Amino acid sequence: MQRTKIAQLFADVDAFGGKEITVAGWVRSVRDMKNFGFVTLNDGSCFRDLQVVMSRETLENYDEIAAQNVSAALICKGTLKLTPEAQQPFELTAESISVEGISAPDYPLQKKRATVEFLRTQQHLRPRTNLFRAVFRIRSVAAASIHSFFQDRGFVYVNTPIITASDCEGAGEMFRVTALDMEDVPRVSEKAAAESGGELHAGEVDWSRDFFGKPASLTVSGQLNAENFAMAFGDVYTFGPTFRAENSNTKRHAAEFWMVEPEIAFADLEDDMNLAEDMLKHVINEVMDRCPDELAMLNKFVDKGLIERLTHVATSDFARVTYTEAVSILEDAVAKGHTFEYPVSWGIDLQTEHERFLTEEHFKRPTFVTDYPVEIKAFYMRLNDDGKTVAAADCLVPGIGEIIGGSQREERLDVLERRIAELGMDPAQYKYYCDLRRYGSCRHAGFGLGFERLVMYLTGVQNIRDVIPHPRTVGNAEF
Amino acid sequence: MQRTKIAQLFADVDAFGGKEITVAGWVRSVRDMKNFGFVTLNDGSCFRDLQVVMSRETLENYDEIAAQNVSAALICKGTLKLTPEAQQPFELTAESISVEGISAPDYPLQKKRATVEFLRTQQHLRPRTNLFRAVFRIRSVAAASIHSFFQDRGFVYVNTPIITASDCEGAGEMFRVTALDMEDVPRVSEKAAAESGGELHAGEVDWSRDFFGKPASLTVSGQLNAENFAMAFGDVYTFGPTFRAENSNTKRHAAEFWMVEPEIAFADLEDDMNLAEDMLKHVINEVMDRCPDELAMLNKFVDKGLIERLTHVATSDFARVTYTEAVSILEDAVAKGHTFEYPVSWGIDLQTEHERFLTEEHFKRPTFVTDYPVEIKAFYMRLNDDGKTVAAADCLVPGIGEIIGGSQREERLDVLERRIAELGMDPAQYKYYCDLRRYGSCRHAGFGLGFERLVMYLTGVQNIRDVIPHPRTVGNAEF
Repeated sequence: MQRTKIAQLFADVDAFGGKEITVAGWVRSVRDMKNFGFVTLNDGSCFRDLQVVMSRETLENYDEIAAQNVSAALICKGTLKLTPEAQQPFELTAESISVEGISAPDYPLQKKRATVEFLRTQQHLRPRTNLFRAVFRIRSVAAASIHSFFQDRGFVYVNTPIITASDCEGAGEMFRVTALDMEDVPRVSEKAAAESGGELHAGEVDWSRDFFGKPASLTVSGQLNAENFAMAFGDVYTFGPTFRAENSNTKRHAAEFWMVEPEIAFADLEDDMNLAEDMLKHVINEVMDRCPDELAMLNKFVDKGLIERLTHVATSDFARVTYTEAVSILEDAVAKGHTFEYPVSWGIDLQTEHERFLTEEHFKRPTFVTDYPVEIKAFYMRLNDDGKTVAAADCLVPGIGEIIGGSQREERLDVLERRIAELGMDPAQYKYYCDLRRYGSCRHAGFGLGFERLVMYLTGVQNIRDVIPHPRTVGNAEF
Repeated sequence: MQRTKIAQLFADVDAFGGKEITVAGWVRSVRDMKNFGFVTLNDGSCFRDLQVVMSRETLENYDEIAAQNVSAALICKGTLKLTPEAQQPFELTAESISVEGISAPDYPLQKKRATVEFLRTQQHLRPRTNLFRAVFRIRSVAAASIHSFFQDRGFVYVNTPIITASDCEGAGEMFRVTALDMEDVPRVSEKAAAESGGELHAGEVDWSRDFFGKPASLTVSGQLNAENFAMAFGDVYTFGPTFRAENSNTKRHAAEFWMVEPEIAFADLEDDMNLAEDMLKHVINEVMDRCPDELAMLNKFVDKGLIERLTHVATSDFARVTYTEAVSILEDAVAKGHTFEYPVSWGIDLQTEHERFLTEEHFKRPTFVTDYPVEIKAFYMRLNDDGKTVAAADCLVPGIGEIIGGSQREERLDVLERRIAELGMDPAQYKYYCDLRRYGSCRHAGFGLGFERLVMYLTGVQNIRDVIPHPRTVGNAEF
C-alpha cells in the first residue's frame, strides 16, 4: 500500500496540495451531518490529526463509515485540499474510505476524560490518548537526543550487563535472578559442606547448581563496568535498564527504570558538571524543537508553567553551591522562619524538601550541590583534601529534586583500598575495580541520570507510572 | 585541563599543525634511544595512536618517562609537527610529559598476542587491546546507527518492560526474578489453600508474597508490548536486553543479549522485509563510514573477506525465496550429492547447515526465507490463504545464518483466537493482545534482530562472548 503519513503533510504541505493521496490511521471522532461528514484521523506519525471530509454522494459506504466508533482503523483515499483560511491548513476530500478494522462498541476509552488511574489499567490502549501520545513521543525523542549528544562527542556506548553476580551496592534492594526451581530449591549436602572447608554450610541454597554457578541479581548501576571501558575509550556512556527491589510505593520510584551513565577519563568534577549541564540543555532543546505540539498540549492541560520553565533552564546557567554552603542557606532560611520537617545541620543527607527549597525557592533554577560529607556518599567518590568531604555533585531541578548524581571517582589506589577496608567491604569483590588504579589510573568522573525523572521533568507529569510504557512497581507487573 | 583528543588531530590536522597542545592518554609502547625516545599514545578517542617524540635535553624527567610500562597514563604537552613525508602524518614534539598514573609491572596484557580465551578472563582490561577497541567501537556505532535509522523515519522508541509476569513464550527458558528469600521460600498455608477454592495448593511457593504479588521473569521479547504502541504510533521500535535461560554452551548463544524489534502498522510482510533490508544496509554503511580503521584491522587479522563481504551486502539486493522453494533447492542439492547432517523435507525447521547452504552457497548473499509451515512458527504469525503456511520471513546472512526473524502479525481476531485455542494456550493471558484486534485492528508486521549476531557479522568475530562487554553464559557472570 502506497500511503502518505500525516506528518509528511504537515512537514511539506505544498508537495501534497491538490494531489491524490492515501492516508491510513485511526478514528479520533466521526461527525455525521446526514449528507456529509467529518472524520478526524490520526496515524501516530505526529501529534496532529487530519480532517477527512466525506459526502454521501461520493461514498457508496457512507453509512458504514459514519457509524464507525472511536479508534476504528480506516484507509482514506482522496485529494488534499488546502484551506489556508481555516483552522486546519488542509483537509482530505475523500473519494473512498475502507474499514481496515472496526472498533467494537465497548472500546474502553470512549470518554474524553478518563483519569490517569483508570488509564493505568488500560496500558495497552493508553498510548492512543493525547496525554500518552505526548509523553511517549517525548520519551522517545529524549532518548534519541541522549544518544546523539554522546555520539556526536565521540563517546562509546557500552551495554553494561543487566545480570550481575557482584553484590556491590545495596544487595538488600536487588532482585535475585535464578533458574533454580523455586518449588524445590537445591540444598548443600552434609558431604559437600564438610568438603568445602567451612565455605559452605549444609542445608543452605546450593548456588553452584544455579545457571551461573553462583547467586546472581539484577544490576542497580552500570558504573563500575563503565569505568572499565572509560579507561580504554576515554569517554563512554551506558543507557539501559536498572532495578531496585525497594518496597516504596511513591510517585517517584519504580522497580525498573532506565539510567544514563557517562564516564569520562582525564576529567574532574567540574568537567563532569559541565557535561551534565550541556546534556540536559541539549535534550531540552531537542524536545522543544521536535515536539512543539506535544509540549503545547502538556503546557495547556498538565503543567501550565512547563514551556516557560524548560525555556528558562535551556538558556540559563545552572547554580553551583557546595554542600556546606547549601546547609548554611537552609539554616538561614530556618532562622528566618521557614520550617522543614527534617532538621538541618551539617552532616545530614539532604531531604527532598531541602533540595526543592534550594532549587525552587533559593536559586530558582537547576542547582549543583557539591562536596558532600564522606559519610553519606558512596565508597568510590574521590576524597577531597579536607578529608571530610568527597567530590560529588548532585543536580537538583525545580519540581523534581535530584535528577543527576555524579562524582569524581577515587583514582588513588591507596585511598580507595583504605575506604574499602574502612567500610568493611570485601576487597576480593573489588579486585578488578582496583586493577583500574594499578594499571594506568587517571582522574575521571561520571554521573547517573534517572531517565524517567528526566521525562517527568520534560512533560510535567507527576507520577513515574505515567512516563513508563508498562511500569513495574510493588505489586504491579501487568502487561 | 584543556586537552586535545587524538581524533581531533586526525579529523583536522591543519587546525593543529605547529600549535602547542596537550594530549592525555595511555602508553601503547615506549622506545628509549638513550638521548631521545618515542612514546606511542592512545586516548581512546579513535583507533589510531599518536607518536610522541621526547628528548633528554628537553625533558627533566626523561628517565622516568622512558621507564613507563604499557598502559601507563601520561599527559603530554608539546607542539604538533606535521610530517607529510613520514608514515604518520604528524607527531607531537614533547615539551613536558607528566605521569598521571603508572602501570604496575605485572600488567596482565604485556604480551602482544594474548588469546581471546585469556582475554575473556581480563574483561576489565581487554577493551585496551586492538581487537576489542575495534569490536566495541563498532558495536557502539552500530547501535547509534540503529537509533538514527528509526528516528529519521519517525519511529517511536519504546522501552518495553524487562521484568514480565506473562509466560508468553518458552517459559522453561525464562529466568525467574524474585525478591523472596531463597533460603526460606514462603509457602501457601493449608488455610490459604482451603480458602482459595482450589486455585492454590498447600505447600507450593506463595507468590503473593513476592515483590510483584505473582511470579515474574526476565523478558524474552518485547514484541507483544511493542504492538500495543504500534497501534497508536504506527511505527515503533524497541532496543533493549532480552534473556534466555537456555543451557546451551555455543559460540552463538548468550543468556543476556540485546534485541531490536520494530513493529509497523498498515504494513505487510513485504514492507517488513524492505524495512529489514534497508536497516541492515544503513548500519553497514554507517559502520564502514565511521570505522574504517577498525574494519581495516579486523579485515587484516580476524576475517580477510570482511570488507569485501560488507561492501557486497550494502550494494546488492537480498534474495527472497519461499520456504517451499528453499526446501526444493536443498532437496536438489541432496540429489546432486550434497550431504546434510539433518535430512531435508517439507515441514522441517531449517537447521543452521541448511540456512548457511542457502545464503552462502546457493544465493551467495543475504536471503529472506518466507512463508514457513504454520506448525514450526509462533502463534501470532499471520496464516496464509493456503492454511498451511504463515507470513513469516527470516533473514539469513553468510557466515552467521539467521540474523532476523520477522512476520506479518495475525490481525484477524477470529483466526488469532482459534490459534490460541488450538495451541492450548490460556486465552486470559492474551486478553490485552486480542484487544488490539477488537479495537481498530490493522495489518501490521515486525521483526527481531539479534544485535550481537549483527555485531559478529560486522566484525567477523566468531564467538558471541567477544562482542559483549561482559558476557553472561552458562556458568559465567563475572565482572
